[in-house]
Amino acid sequence: MNCVFCGVKDGSVPAFKVFEDEKTVAFMDINPVNDGHLLVIPKSHAENLFDLSEDDLKAVASAVQQVARAVKAALNPDGMNLLQANGRAAFQSVPHFHIHVVPRWENDGKGLDWELVRGDFEKIKSVAETIKAQI
Amino acid sequence: MNCVFCGVKDGSVPAFKVFEDEKTVAFMDINPVNDGHLLVIPKSHAENLFDLSEDDLKAVASAVQQVARAVKAALNPDGMNLLQANGRAAFQSVPHFHIHVVPRWENDGKGLDWELVRGDFEKIKSVAETIKAQI
Repeated sequence: MNCVFCGVKDGSVPAFKVFEDEKTVAFMDINPVNDGHLLVIPKSHAENLFDLSEDDLKAVASAVQQVARAVKAALNPDGMNLLQANGRAAFQSVPHFHIHVVPRWENDGKGLDWELVRGDFEKIKSVAETIKAQI
Repeated sequence: MNCVFCGVKDGSVPAFKVFEDEKTVAFMDINPVNDGHLLVIPKSHAENLFDLSEDDLKAVASAVQQVARAVKAALNPDGMNLLQANGRAAFQSVPHFHIHVVPRWENDGKGLDWELVRGDFEKIKSVAETIKAQI
């Protein structure tokens, strides 16, 4: 399959691992946004949030929390972002589910370029109905 | 306490809810980045990832997956981002843990302004050791 993160998991691709348990691995992002930027993956291959088992998702969530606490203790950042991408349109670059843990410092210039713009409530309500109908 | 998301949970603050279970609520973001942008919160108040119980985190993760599948089925986006912020430096605006579910479309111009820049491996290794020592 030649998945680079499966390679990290099995050791065939070198990585700076910081944590590992039965179902997850955490390792440093080699293109760090900030010091301490790391990734948490499920050991079992799944391309994205839609393919991942609920069990593996919960295991990754717990690992993220544990690792985020360690990042906070080690680096004392002012804040922390979690980011996860599904699909190229969402800037997913490696097709193996991963959650970015990104320590943040005040005015680090790594902001999101999303502006808060108040939406049209009729439109929002109508979209909400469409989504509710699928749950 | 006057927390706006606790108000959404208990109904005192109006919101377009799309999902609710024992431990979580999902509702539309009123400042949507894209159509279908919604938030998933734990019912039990916790300011951020560090204060949240592991149980509530897992419940929120499961709800996010369920809601994300519904957004995908309803709106057929090209991709989807999950984003979670802790602290003002990470652009957290409401001090009640929440995960953003953001549908994405190719070239929607809502990109992250993070550039992928290869890091210094010695530096990354050293930071990894510092974090590992805290786990």
